[in-house]
Amino acid sequence: MNTDYISKATLGRLPIYLQYLRSVRMEKRSISATGIANALGFGEVQVRKDLGSICKRGKPKIGYVTEELIAELEMCLRCDSKGQAIIVGAGKLGQALLDYAGFSEYGLEIIAAFDSRVQNGECSEKGKPIYPFREIGGFCYRNDVHIGIITVPKEAAQEVCNEMVKNNICAIWSFAPIILTVPDHVVVMQENLALSLAHLKKQIK
Amino acid sequence: MNTDYISKATLGRLPIYLQYLRSVRMEKRSISATGIANALGFGEVQVRKDLGSICKRGKPKIGYVTEELIAELEMCLRCDSKGQAIIVGAGKLGQALLDYAGFSEYGLEIIAAFDSRVQNGECSEKGKPIYPFREIGGFCYRNDVHIGIITVPKEAAQEVCNEMVKNNICAIWSFAPIILTVPDHVVVMQENLALSLAHLKKQIK
Repeated sequence: MNTDYISKATLGRLPIYLQYLRSVRMEKRSISATGIANALGFGEVQVRKDLGSICKRGKPKIGYVTEELIAELEMCLRCDSKGQAIIVGAGKLGQALLDYAGFSEYGLEIIAAFDSRVQNGECSEKGKPIYPFREIGGFCYRNDVHIGIITVPKEAAQEVCNEMVKNNICAIWSFAPIILTVPDHVVVMQENLALSLAHLKKQIK
Repeated sequence: MNTDYISKATLGRLPIYLQYLRSVRMEKRSISATGIANALGFGEVQVRKDLGSICKRGKPKIGYVTEELIAELEMCLRCDSKGQAIIVGAGKLGQALLDYAGFSEYGLEIIAAFDSRVQNGECSEKGKPIYPFREIGGFCYRNDVHIGIITVPKEAAQEVCNEMVKNNICAIWSFAPIILTVPDHVVVMQENLALSLAHLKKQIK
């Protein structure tokens, strides 16, 4: 199944389905979309649509085979080897992300950080390695890393971005408030935390 | 003008318009949507729509009076006194947000953090105050704060949320991976950083 174009909203619900199905796998060999919807307080149409984007429809009167659906969800959330990411900029935000445990839910792991202020290898609080920035190339090559996260000040962001692209990073998540220039094959997601907070403020009733 | 329902995408472009207009205010007394669109590489329709959501249309053949448009943008981005926020959870992420300078672009400021592990007042690297959690009530009341940010572990998030609501916080930005229960008048925005990274990974070409 091609799950490339799954929406962000659907993707956000997949770990919830997975967690629920794992909790009932011993007692329910099969489960219907209605059953899942009722248990989670979601709409039935939404559940059918979400699950339809990752696997075939359930069978009439039976629904989904629980173990098969669990396997499909696991595969969608962490099937490939592209889940390893590196981060450049080991300031407070960078180290917070480096040590954040929640990425594993999506089969993702930030395996190392790089920082130009680091001279020899260091460790984060949770023991993740932080290397000098100049070592990024060899590291990405050896570990087949394709996802990069930028948490450096905006003045340094484009240079870091260029170095990532040169080293086969093809997906970049940037927290620097600057528009990055990248080749066509590279996808960039700009995170603007100030904008998120401003948007929340606008919603005050 | 009621700018309550401005979209997040539009809101994201307002600081770009403002920056551009400030840079040309000496040479251009008036400016057209076409002129702005060309200068910024935006579509004309988009510029008209964005500006239409914060002020009246420009006049035919003249466009907008530059100073008036600057004033409208400034008002929309920081007019009211609701721009002060507090944060609970002074770990790495909390302190990174506390010291982040980019919020001021939207007239926002995180004025203090609170943490249950803090016994007496402390300071962040940039000199922002970090208080014991028990002091949140008095602080919010004295400073008329209505925006709260939650960066505590998920186990503590609902309790922190309840305390915020009790102290007149009506907009909550939560980084804890848990669905918070709040009264109807409170707006909650859930930030799921793992989901953002997972979504980026799905877009790899």
